[in-house]
Amino acid sequence: MLDFPKDGFNALTAAEIARRVSAGEATAEAVVRDCLSRIEAREPTVRAWAFIDPDHAIAQARALDAGPVRGPLQGVPVGIKDIFATADMPTALGSPIHAGRRPAADASCVALLRAAGAVILGKTVTCEFAGMEPGVTTNPHDPGRTPGGSSSGSAAGVADGMMPLALGTQTGGSVLRPSSFCGIVGFKPSYNAINRQGLCFAAESLDTIGLHARCVDDIDLCAAALTGRDAEPGRKPDSPPVIGLCRTPMWQTAEGETVEAVEDAADRLAAAGAAVSEIVLPALFEEIPAARETINCVERARGMAFEWNTARERISPRLRVSIEKGLSIGLDDYIAALETAAECRRQLAEICDGLGALLAPCVRGEAPEGLEETGDPAFQGFFTALHVPALTLPTHKGPNGMPVGIQLVGHFQGDRDLLALARWAWDALEG
Amino acid sequence: MLDFPKDGFNALTAAEIARRVSAGEATAEAVVRDCLSRIEAREPTVRAWAFIDPDHAIAQARALDAGPVRGPLQGVPVGIKDIFATADMPTALGSPIHAGRRPAADASCVALLRAAGAVILGKTVTCEFAGMEPGVTTNPHDPGRTPGGSSSGSAAGVADGMMPLALGTQTGGSVLRPSSFCGIVGFKPSYNAINRQGLCFAAESLDTIGLHARCVDDIDLCAAALTGRDAEPGRKPDSPPVIGLCRTPMWQTAEGETVEAVEDAADRLAAAGAAVSEIVLPALFEEIPAARETINCVERARGMAFEWNTARERISPRLRVSIEKGLSIGLDDYIAALETAAECRRQLAEICDGLGALLAPCVRGEAPEGLEETGDPAFQGFFTALHVPALTLPTHKGPNGMPVGIQLVGHFQGDRDLLALARWAWDALEG
Repeated sequence: MLDFPKDGFNALTAAEIARRVSAGEATAEAVVRDCLSRIEAREPTVRAWAFIDPDHAIAQARALDAGPVRGPLQGVPVGIKDIFATADMPTALGSPIHAGRRPAADASCVALLRAAGAVILGKTVTCEFAGMEPGVTTNPHDPGRTPGGSSSGSAAGVADGMMPLALGTQTGGSVLRPSSFCGIVGFKPSYNAINRQGLCFAAESLDTIGLHARCVDDIDLCAAALTGRDAEPGRKPDSPPVIGLCRTPMWQTAEGETVEAVEDAADRLAAAGAAVSEIVLPALFEEIPAARETINCVERARGMAFEWNTARERISPRLRVSIEKGLSIGLDDYIAALETAAECRRQLAEICDGLGALLAPCVRGEAPEGLEETGDPAFQGFFTALHVPALTLPTHKGPNGMPVGIQLVGHFQGDRDLLALARWAWDALEG
Repeated sequence: MLDFPKDGFNALTAAEIARRVSAGEATAEAVVRDCLSRIEAREPTVRAWAFIDPDHAIAQARALDAGPVRGPLQGVPVGIKDIFATADMPTALGSPIHAGRRPAADASCVALLRAAGAVILGKTVTCEFAGMEPGVTTNPHDPGRTPGGSSSGSAAGVADGMMPLALGTQTGGSVLRPSSFCGIVGFKPSYNAINRQGLCFAAESLDTIGLHARCVDDIDLCAAALTGRDAEPGRKPDSPPVIGLCRTPMWQTAEGETVEAVEDAADRLAAAGAAVSEIVLPALFEEIPAARETINCVERARGMAFEWNTARERISPRLRVSIEKGLSIGLDDYIAALETAAECRRQLAEICDGLGALLAPCVRGEAPEGLEETGDPAFQGFFTALHVPALTLPTHKGPNGMPVGIQLVGHFQGDRDLLALARWAWDALEG
């Protein structure tokens, strides 16, 4: 992880912040002020924020400090990807078309965070409509490299110590890729696990709300608040897990550092006691990348009908290409793609029976140089299309010292067990 | 169907309106004016509209008349359930909390209708947040009876001849029940068939955008425009279909007129050449009503977190009970309900292999007297939870002369084949 100064509240975990604020050992205001100081120092370089109003963040914190403890995220500052509606801040969706727009209501996940005691710190930079056209954010490890996308500001801000938690969304690889590029933990839950009211869709049968944090326990704390369960800090499997090493059909696109990360992780997890075996997926899974692209483009084209019809010239050329592709795909091909994905989900459930998780590549390699591209979503998008929960851990480094994550993939609706296994894996790889 | 005056353009089918306007045989303005005349005459009784601005509707029509033909719905006036965002009209969601609210963008389905040449006539009355708390609409056949809900104004307006087409949504039975009660054709496509960008969710893993019309061809015309395919007017199966008579686990709740409608339809479809056999669903399907209720309440509670936290006192007592129930249900029970529904979907696909469609009860019986309840969603909600396309045809009458529909249920993603079969069934039952 990035070696940012650790002397402020902003460097604490979300769990520790909530504990201290709830216990009266710290004020939410002091926590927010430390986050704002870090942002003030680093924002000119990192550019993680689409909107932030320090006074409004402090006012939220003071309101929390003046009342009773609201919930398990008491006083925790959270960054919200600017693809979620917020009633008290603009919601621009990374597009000039919606610049300055103020929704009437919070997205449900934002409202649930507030009810749990979180401070909504601000709106983080998103790629245009959560797609592939970058925003202005840089990688906090190297401002000449992409932070990944589309949840660029959320991942960069958490990695940089601006806040301990952020919301993202993943349609292809928009949570796990920037998390891996920025060297943090990223979690895409099972499809439909976190309510999407108030989310601007990219492709609604893929879009999944995800989380960025610097440790698994913080992911769990936030996921618990959003899904109405208790957090399970420190929970691990009762015995060393059975892990399937799944190179995926895109393995040949992995760069050296990702090959090394995945194989090293497999070796060390095995050394720690895991039963690791190679899983080769059936040939049908080779159709997933094309099916995902079809679903993504068709649903993108439909979902953006308003912008397409009223403000086409203010959509980026890159996104226009996706929409045009979506418009050119016939309904039968779209339905066939949905059916391919559904059939692979059924097969994956059988293949993973008896496994604790899959270990897979997360990214091609280190964050690429330049800010014009956010990287290849193939390894992340593969599992997004399969609707299974996936998590990246910042376990490795590439040849330029940039972070390279591994990906752990769980059973559909087995989110809590995946988090438990991820804690075990983290200890095995970093402990 | 209601015997309203047939001398205006408002009495035509959507297909005939589009044909005439496209051919220059009628203007969109003249069509809209006839709709507005009907509305002026009947709105004090039917109360179908949450918002309608005659000048704005006429302005849209004039703009269409001044330009080239836009698409297959050229000049067709459409009513939009007030649960969809519209950029040029308020979107109140049937709730005082959102009264007068103006979204920045159209819902994608509204934008797609405009692109196809439709005139967005106005916003139709919805139950509060598309739930069970009624709006002010009455049944056009009898103002002392409920029109059903939650797509109350959409169904009542189409039935009353105010417009030929309307958008609705179905989470339980919100398209098919009001369609049956008002004596029109109602269609709930396969889950996810029509893009939901800009829809306020009731329960997102159930919510399905549906259509109200007075004939199957108009349903097809509109569904085609919303899903990027060509309409198939008049298409029927090549040979008489194989139909499964599915009484459902709730059969004992059916009133006499529904028992008679279903059994009479089965007899007459068989007489017309269909192979009709009884389908008894496995015991697991008896769990669908409870699973649907669990999913509905949990997702409702999450999706309304903003309103719950900021304006609880302006939520109706009935809806508050649903939210409180949702908040009381544990995550494991919710996931179990989702898994029950998913397993029943898998089983239903096998059971229906070789069948053209299921014939099922649509409603308990006639629209009940009174406006305080919108009727029982059980028969419609059963198939909503199964994600399969379902359609009601206004084929029968109850003891008070009120309409009683039958329900035809297709294969998941087999929407076009269901519409084809419905045309055949309509001819067999009404031709």
